[in-house]
Amino acid sequence: MRAEELNRDLIGIPGGRQRLQTPALVIDLDVMERNIARMAEHARTHNIALRPHAKTHKCSEIAKRQMQAGALGICTAKLGEAEALADAGIDSILITSPVVTDRGIARLMALNAQLRELIVVCDSAEVAARLNRSAAERGMLLKVLVDIDPGMGRTGLAPNDAAVALVQQVANPNHLEYAGLQCYAGNLQHLESPNERRDSSLSAMSTLAQLRDALNARGLAPKILSGGGTGTFDIDPDARTLTELQAGSYVFMDRQYNEVWQKPGERPPFETSLFVQTTVISANRDGLATSDAGFKAFATDAGAPRIAHGAPEGASYFFFGDEQGGVRYDSSNRELNVGDVLTCIVPHCDPTVNLYDCYHCVRGDMLEAIWPIEARGRAA
Amino acid sequence: MRAEELNRDLIGIPGGRQRLQTPALVIDLDVMERNIARMAEHARTHNIALRPHAKTHKCSEIAKRQMQAGALGICTAKLGEAEALADAGIDSILITSPVVTDRGIARLMALNAQLRELIVVCDSAEVAARLNRSAAERGMLLKVLVDIDPGMGRTGLAPNDAAVALVQQVANPNHLEYAGLQCYAGNLQHLESPNERRDSSLSAMSTLAQLRDALNARGLAPKILSGGGTGTFDIDPDARTLTELQAGSYVFMDRQYNEVWQKPGERPPFETSLFVQTTVISANRDGLATSDAGFKAFATDAGAPRIAHGAPEGASYFFFGDEQGGVRYDSSNRELNVGDVLTCIVPHCDPTVNLYDCYHCVRGDMLEAIWPIEARGRAA
Repeated sequence: MRAEELNRDLIGIPGGRQRLQTPALVIDLDVMERNIARMAEHARTHNIALRPHAKTHKCSEIAKRQMQAGALGICTAKLGEAEALADAGIDSILITSPVVTDRGIARLMALNAQLRELIVVCDSAEVAARLNRSAAERGMLLKVLVDIDPGMGRTGLAPNDAAVALVQQVANPNHLEYAGLQCYAGNLQHLESPNERRDSSLSAMSTLAQLRDALNARGLAPKILSGGGTGTFDIDPDARTLTELQAGSYVFMDRQYNEVWQKPGERPPFETSLFVQTTVISANRDGLATSDAGFKAFATDAGAPRIAHGAPEGASYFFFGDEQGGVRYDSSNRELNVGDVLTCIVPHCDPTVNLYDCYHCVRGDMLEAIWPIEARGRAA
Repeated sequence: MRAEELNRDLIGIPGGRQRLQTPALVIDLDVMERNIARMAEHARTHNIALRPHAKTHKCSEIAKRQMQAGALGICTAKLGEAEALADAGIDSILITSPVVTDRGIARLMALNAQLRELIVVCDSAEVAARLNRSAAERGMLLKVLVDIDPGMGRTGLAPNDAAVALVQQVANPNHLEYAGLQCYAGNLQHLESPNERRDSSLSAMSTLAQLRDALNARGLAPKILSGGGTGTFDIDPDARTLTELQAGSYVFMDRQYNEVWQKPGERPPFETSLFVQTTVISANRDGLATSDAGFKAFATDAGAPRIAHGAPEGASYFFFGDEQGGVRYDSSNRELNVGDVLTCIVPHCDPTVNLYDCYHCVRGDMLEAIWPIEARGRAA
C-alpha cells in the first residue's frame, strides 16, 4: 500500500483527522486558503505581481490555487520540480536556479516545448552560449532572466559590468529572449530584527535599481525584476524595484518564520497551516513519551519541532533518532499514553515537505482530501 | 520522467558515472559487497546470527544480498518499510519499533499472513493484549519479542519485574508466540572513545544477561536476543548475550561512523560505499563555488558532508540553503567551474538515503544499475 493510500478510507469520516496513520503531513485548509488570499490581496494592493515559489509545497493542487488567486505562474528551484509540476498541469514556470549541464539543458528544451511559458535564469556567459546553441538547434526561443547576486554569493553575478555584459549577450538577436533580471536575497528573509531586515532589503533593492537604470540607459530595460520572499514580502514593494514577488513559505509558515515576527507588538502576517501529526508509541517513563517522528519525519536544519496540540502545557519535543521523537513533559496533571496523538509545527517547512509523498488536507477534525506532492524528491 | 529514469541511458556507458544528472545517490558496488561479506564473515566467526537493519538502505536489492550472504532475515524500523520490502520479495522481517494503533495492528496482521516470518516488538501490556485479540480474531499466531530498554529511555521496558511480567503475558498460551527479547543500545553506537563504547556495551549486555537468567529460571528462556549495531559489532559478540546482530550502517558507512574510528592506530572496520554526487552550478567568486545539493539532498542532523573527490585539496562543503551547497577552497592552484562534479561522503547515511528514490550503482566509472529505494518515505 503506497503512502497516499494509507489514510484514504478516512476521507469524509468525522474524527478522521485523529485517526491518521502517522507520521503524517497535515494541511489545515481553512488557514492555507486565508494565507493564499492574504498574499494575493497584498500583491494587488501594492501593484506588484506574484510568482509564488513552489519549492515550498511541490504540489500542483496548491500551485493551481495560487494561480486561481491571481499569480502569474509559479517558481521552482529545480528542473525536476518543474517537470513534475508541468506533468501535473501547471503551464507557467520560472526555474530559479541555473541549469548548466548538457543533459539538463536538453531536458530544459523539452520542457520549453511543453509549457505555455518557461523562464530560466543564467549567471554565466558560457552557459548562456550553450543555452542559445541548444535552443537554436531546436529552432526555439528560450526566455532568460539574468541572475543577480544580492551579496550572498550563492548564485548570480554582482550588479556591475559583468552583469551588464551578460544582459547584452542574452539580449543580442539570437535564440534567447531577454526577459529581465532575478535577484533573490535569501540571506535576509529570516533576519529577526525588523529594522535590519528592512534596511538590508531596501539597500539590496537600491543596488538592483541602479543596475536597472544603467540597463535602461543602454536600451536594455528589464521587463521582469523577480525576487523577494516571505520574510521581506511587505518591504520589497516599498522599494518599487521588483515587478514580482517569489514568496513561497507564506502558504504554510513554520517555527523558523514564526520566530521572525515573535516579538512584542508583532505577530506573523500569515498563520501556520502545516503540521506533522505523530503518535506516542512508547511511554514507560515518568514525564517522557516516545513518538513515531524523528529525523526522517522532520528536516532538522532549523532545530526541533514545536508541539501545537496534544501534549500537556510546556511539553517539549526533541529528536530521539532517525525514527522517533521524544516528548519531555510535566506529568503531575496529565500523562501521555501509547496511542496519544500530537500535532507539531515543523521547524522548516520546505525540506520537511520534501520527506513526504502526500498532504493530508483537513478542515476541523475532518480529512477532506489527500494531495500528492508530485515534485517531492525531484532535486535533480 | 521519474527520478529513476533520469540516468538510465547511462547504464553500461564508459564514463557514465561522471555524467549523472545530480544530486544523485551513488553506491560503489565493489566496496558495498566487501562490507556485506566482511560483516557476514564476522558473524560466522563469532557464531552469532545476523539480521541487518534495512532502515539504513530501505532497498530490496541490498536486503537480498545480505540474506544471500547468510543473514536470517532483515529488520525494519517501521511497518511501512516492512510492507514495501515484503512487496518487493523479502520474506523474513523483524519490525524493531512498537506498532500500537488499531489501524497499524490491522496492517500488521495482513503482513503476518503475507510473510514467511514476521516478528514484532512490544513494550506495553495493553498493546500486547490488543495484538493478541487481533491475532485471535484472524486465527493466527504472531511472533513477539519483548523490547527491553538498555537505559536510553526510547522504547522498551527496564529489565526488571515489569519486563518479566510482560514476558509472562506474551508467553501465556494465546495467539502470541513468545520469541525472545530485543535490546538495542542506540545511544552507545557513536561513542568515540573505544573504551567507553566497550564498557558501556558490555555493561548493558550484562544487565540483559541477568534478565535472561531470571527468565531461564522461570522456564521463559528467550530463544532470540536481538540487538547491537555497527558501532558495537565487534564488542557485542564478546558479551555472549545477543543471539543476533541488527547492524545496518555497515553496508554504507558515513562521516559520523567514520569518525568513531578516526583516531591514531585505528581505522574504520568498514569502507565508505555511499556518496552523494553533486554538480557545480555557479562559480562567480574566487574560492567559492555553489553546488546543486543542499538541505534536500543531505540529512543535516550530523553536520556537513565531506568532499571525497572533485575539489581542490582542503576544500570544505557547507549548506547553502534548501537546494544548494557551497564549496570554499583555495583557488591558487585550481579553480572550480560550472559543470564540475563533486563526490561527497554523507554526514549520516540513514536519513540521507530517505531523501532519494533510487541508488545509482557504480563500479569504477561505469554505472552498472539503478535500484529503487522501495521503503523511502515509508515512515508510517
